[in-house]
Amino acid sequence: MQKLIDKILKFGEVYPDRVLKVDSFLNHQVDMDLMSEIAEELYSRYLGTDINKILTLEVSGIPVACACAQVFNVPIVYAKKTETKNLPDDVYTNTVFKPNDKGYDITVAKKFLSPEDRILIVDDFLAKGYALKSLIELSKAAGATVVGAGIVIEKGFEHGGDELRKDGVRVESMVIMDEIKDDGKISFRN
Amino acid sequence: MQKLIDKILKFGEVYPDRVLKVDSFLNHQVDMDLMSEIAEELYSRYLGTDINKILTLEVSGIPVACACAQVFNVPIVYAKKTETKNLPDDVYTNTVFKPNDKGYDITVAKKFLSPEDRILIVDDFLAKGYALKSLIELSKAAGATVVGAGIVIEKGFEHGGDELRKDGVRVESMVIMDEIKDDGKISFRN
Repeated sequence: MQKLIDKILKFGEVYPDRVLKVDSFLNHQVDMDLMSEIAEELYSRYLGTDINKILTLEVSGIPVACACAQVFNVPIVYAKKTETKNLPDDVYTNTVFKPNDKGYDITVAKKFLSPEDRILIVDDFLAKGYALKSLIELSKAAGATVVGAGIVIEKGFEHGGDELRKDGVRVESMVIMDEIKDDGKISFRN
Repeated sequence: MQKLIDKILKFGEVYPDRVLKVDSFLNHQVDMDLMSEIAEELYSRYLGTDINKILTLEVSGIPVACACAQVFNVPIVYAKKTETKNLPDDVYTNTVFKPNDKGYDITVAKKFLSPEDRILIVDDFLAKGYALKSLIELSKAAGATVVGAGIVIEKGFEHGGDELRKDGVRVESMVIMDEIKDDGKISFRN
């Protein structure tokens, strides 16, 4: 998606360890026009797949997921991050694994996911894929069908997206970055 | 707003201590059609006020703020909650006071608020008004003008909204609940 690449090149800030900061249009200040264009693109890629729910994870996936909910004309559900160890039994839960970290738990109220659901999971970034894998497992625990994922920026060099594709998960990313060099130069996958 | 009242009466769940749970359409699962209608209503109420930025606070204010950003055709900025005590000097910060609680700090990157900004603060709930007051103070620290607030559900019996109006803040709420009785009955202000 050329418009997104242009935005990243113009407003993205590269930090050490291949960190890309895009808080001027994606995850602090948000350009909702761009989110709507991304939603339209995802809608056209997922045409005919009967998606009836958008699922994301708080916080930074919510704006693009909201735009998708509008374009797909379906509800959005956002999973909540929780530190509570005593969870009520009316939620589905899963742990987002993080190496070198304790990770965190996510929950979705059981009443908002069902075997009738055909879900598009939406998020702002995909790197190692820990959050996405967790959302997929949580959806499966509800008996729902995960039609695929819609990602704004995929860090191809972290390989989470390609691993998921190898496992048969449909992952549609608006841009895939194959490299962020030390001098800040970004290579995008064609 | 009759449609919102109908939704509250149909899907809202009342818990002890006048807690209203509306997670089926506002703050877990979200009905974006309703959010867009609320945004249209706020747009018509704030017509001619030259709002150029929507400000909210993560997490549950984000969906309705996203809808407003689309209708007003301006960016949204969401303030972040932080537990970090050593904040960088490139953020504005303010503490959301909570009695009987330590409260929490919110931050917005300085680059996203300026004296040229004419801000509409949007949130899902307004009760005592602690979060809203904090967002107003943070905006003022940036030299920005707070044109007003747009609230989905105001708990009138908590008096935060009326205090702010007395202080000259324009607060537009889609519904104001004047009472939630023990039997779950809700009285709405005309």
